[in-house]
Amino acid sequence: MADSKLTMDKIVNLCKNRGFVYPGSDIYGGFANTWDFGPVGVELKNNIKRAWWKKFVQESPDTYGVDAAILMNPRVWEASGHVASFGDPKMDCKNCKQRFRADTLIEAHSKGAVAAEAMTNEEMEKYIEEHDIKCPHCGVRNWTPIRKFNPMFVTSRGTLEEGSDKVYLRPETCQGEYVNFLNVQRTARAKVPFAIAQIGKSFRNEITPGNFLFRTVEFEQMELQKFCKESESMDIYVDYKARALDFVKALGLSEENLRYHDHDKLAHYAKAACDIQYKFPMGWQELNGIHHRGVWDLSRHQEYSGKTMQYIDPFTNEKYVPNVIEYSIGADRLTLALLCEAYEEQALEKETRVVMHFHPAIAPYKVAVLPLQKNLSEKAKEVYALLSKKFMCDYDETGSIGKRYRRQDEIGTPFCVTVDFDTLEDGSVTVRDRDSMEQIRIKIDEVKKYVEEKIEF
Amino acid sequence: MADSKLTMDKIVNLCKNRGFVYPGSDIYGGFANTWDFGPVGVELKNNIKRAWWKKFVQESPDTYGVDAAILMNPRVWEASGHVASFGDPKMDCKNCKQRFRADTLIEAHSKGAVAAEAMTNEEMEKYIEEHDIKCPHCGVRNWTPIRKFNPMFVTSRGTLEEGSDKVYLRPETCQGEYVNFLNVQRTARAKVPFAIAQIGKSFRNEITPGNFLFRTVEFEQMELQKFCKESESMDIYVDYKARALDFVKALGLSEENLRYHDHDKLAHYAKAACDIQYKFPMGWQELNGIHHRGVWDLSRHQEYSGKTMQYIDPFTNEKYVPNVIEYSIGADRLTLALLCEAYEEQALEKETRVVMHFHPAIAPYKVAVLPLQKNLSEKAKEVYALLSKKFMCDYDETGSIGKRYRRQDEIGTPFCVTVDFDTLEDGSVTVRDRDSMEQIRIKIDEVKKYVEEKIEF
Repeated sequence: MADSKLTMDKIVNLCKNRGFVYPGSDIYGGFANTWDFGPVGVELKNNIKRAWWKKFVQESPDTYGVDAAILMNPRVWEASGHVASFGDPKMDCKNCKQRFRADTLIEAHSKGAVAAEAMTNEEMEKYIEEHDIKCPHCGVRNWTPIRKFNPMFVTSRGTLEEGSDKVYLRPETCQGEYVNFLNVQRTARAKVPFAIAQIGKSFRNEITPGNFLFRTVEFEQMELQKFCKESESMDIYVDYKARALDFVKALGLSEENLRYHDHDKLAHYAKAACDIQYKFPMGWQELNGIHHRGVWDLSRHQEYSGKTMQYIDPFTNEKYVPNVIEYSIGADRLTLALLCEAYEEQALEKETRVVMHFHPAIAPYKVAVLPLQKNLSEKAKEVYALLSKKFMCDYDETGSIGKRYRRQDEIGTPFCVTVDFDTLEDGSVTVRDRDSMEQIRIKIDEVKKYVEEKIEF
Repeated sequence: MADSKLTMDKIVNLCKNRGFVYPGSDIYGGFANTWDFGPVGVELKNNIKRAWWKKFVQESPDTYGVDAAILMNPRVWEASGHVASFGDPKMDCKNCKQRFRADTLIEAHSKGAVAAEAMTNEEMEKYIEEHDIKCPHCGVRNWTPIRKFNPMFVTSRGTLEEGSDKVYLRPETCQGEYVNFLNVQRTARAKVPFAIAQIGKSFRNEITPGNFLFRTVEFEQMELQKFCKESESMDIYVDYKARALDFVKALGLSEENLRYHDHDKLAHYAKAACDIQYKFPMGWQELNGIHHRGVWDLSRHQEYSGKTMQYIDPFTNEKYVPNVIEYSIGADRLTLALLCEAYEEQALEKETRVVMHFHPAIAPYKVAVLPLQKNLSEKAKEVYALLSKKFMCDYDETGSIGKRYRRQDEIGTPFCVTVDFDTLEDGSVTVRDRDSMEQIRIKIDEVKKYVEEKIEF
């Protein structure tokens, strides 16, 4: 359904003007590519998170949720390798002091034709010199050598007078599952294969954030780690590739805007890795990842913590460190994809309507209650009070009914319930469908059930 | 229902052993009073957050949600006063280098008889010397003078080569509402009085965290800011005092464990302030607060941002900076209170059962599906699949049925559905009530509706 002429600007403007997303710290001129979700945005994002949790936790008897702290023991990040080797190749402009990623500059300059991630620092420096790539900020070419930049935010606990402890803001949520592997296994009496799932915020001091919600310094991940025997691990990997794709299709992303992207280059410990990409207005980009991580994560934690990470099979008494299949998707990124997919400018007879075709399960408001005239507001408020016990509802009594429909179309409300003079007589209302614009007449008592059936996911 | 002999240790142990809450970074010996919510804890806390959102956003037509970024422009914290004056009176032990709050040491030493918060630094230093208060860590009395300690976590953005920008982890969520006051007002076309609500994490580098989930460095707030005319502000303040109390009572906290605590000492800008306290195992402590903040917050942002914070009344054209009534409750603190309230050790004929009497709306699992024998597991899994489309359900086929009931009692599952041989014949199951332990026989098709009615909130 995505509009072929869709630009990111259109999405950003709609989001700002309709209350989906505002720039963070807006009155202070924004801040560092942070974004604040507004009244309809917070509902949309919460609905997406709930839909994910429903499919992957609630309806998955072998999956257990956790919500781990953002601040973790610094040893976690030594074990994970983030302290030592996590980093982007950065260069500073000696002229204006701005910092950039070398690989991003090369990819932008070559319009994606050169895969800089496969290049060494020396190759990148040479390429930048030969192609005379200048600073995008000041236009001068006067670069420092490439250095590694660790994108973890560092803070400190001030409980000691001197030498405060370093504390990192987690750059990924999955460590919360790894360190709790045996806690969850024990308390849930879980049997391998089982998964631990989490939704939570991560932070990366990205040098080149951008493209609205696509890459931000603060972002929310929805991910699970499945712990399994090596012999079954590849089947589970393939299974999550399929389930991950099914999920985003079920939420409304269309097949032609989705593709698998298997990785050629793997981390030394990984056995397989695949992204699902979405065709955003700026091109094909990673939406989520499925990674076969082998025994790397649990083995490292076993080594660094000195605690066993072995699972004991209750039937065979076999002891082993399980393999891990990771499935991870960015909640903000998925929100952006669903905003893009839903957007349509529809040419009607005399006007253009902008309509957001969200799946009813994720639409911010399920129902808008609209009194045809202001003197019907008492009855309309009764209907609103009844329905808002069950769903997020909007209420609007200002402007012509046509104008009010348009407002609801722009925020993707699937059903408008109009209260008119007949309502007072026979207790019936008009229910107008967002996509077809068709209207039916039903009893007030039936609206709840009617809507409930449509918003199932 | 709270047990009179209830200790915090009992709650902590139950939480660790049944998967409510584990120590953060557990395999590394924990970290800084952080806690990780386990499989049942994450459901409990999410249900509490959802219940709050339902009452104060979904069912409140004048309240709009937001989800603002944790990282905000540092100017926000200058405007709010946190950079200049936010702080606790701290002292370091010169012997062992540990840091403590002077007021906490005095209050602990005097067993609460001395209200140190009203003392000056000089008075506190004198008191500590005269009463020979020693370091609780090493037992020596060798203190530095008292200094102010700013509990905001500080980090930095590394996008510039030198002089990285300071970034704070927000110590409170409400600034996300203040900076978005006019964004929300404009995009939702809201009329004063209206409120903006938010649920999100805040961080404080507390010197004396403790008492399990009660005071932690990383915590989640549920709060709303109501913007109103001065003339109506005191009525709204009184209204939220009542609504705040109604909410925690509706969730299950009993009247005798709750009390109002009106503040005598007010911040210079505040017009009224009140806590609701709960009787935790360690005594009466603040559970939530209702504050009349006057025009302080919006005026300060107007001054520091240079942007108007004035609302224009669409009927009278009156322009003014609204008053703010704040209602704020800690999600972790409320979770702890509800854990304490729910806990009961019940003496049965031959044994003691531990049962968590959660309101069904917040119980982690709504239903546990239990096949009477293992060869009924196929049918039981069908029932589980059916019900888990609708609710969080548990499935358990190991151990005697009595043992399985006890496990569910300990995590507060309100309904156990037992599948037996009659189920195969007539499609009926036994539904056992957690609190009364009574059992009824109903059709599988009716279970969904039966449970749905009981878990309404």
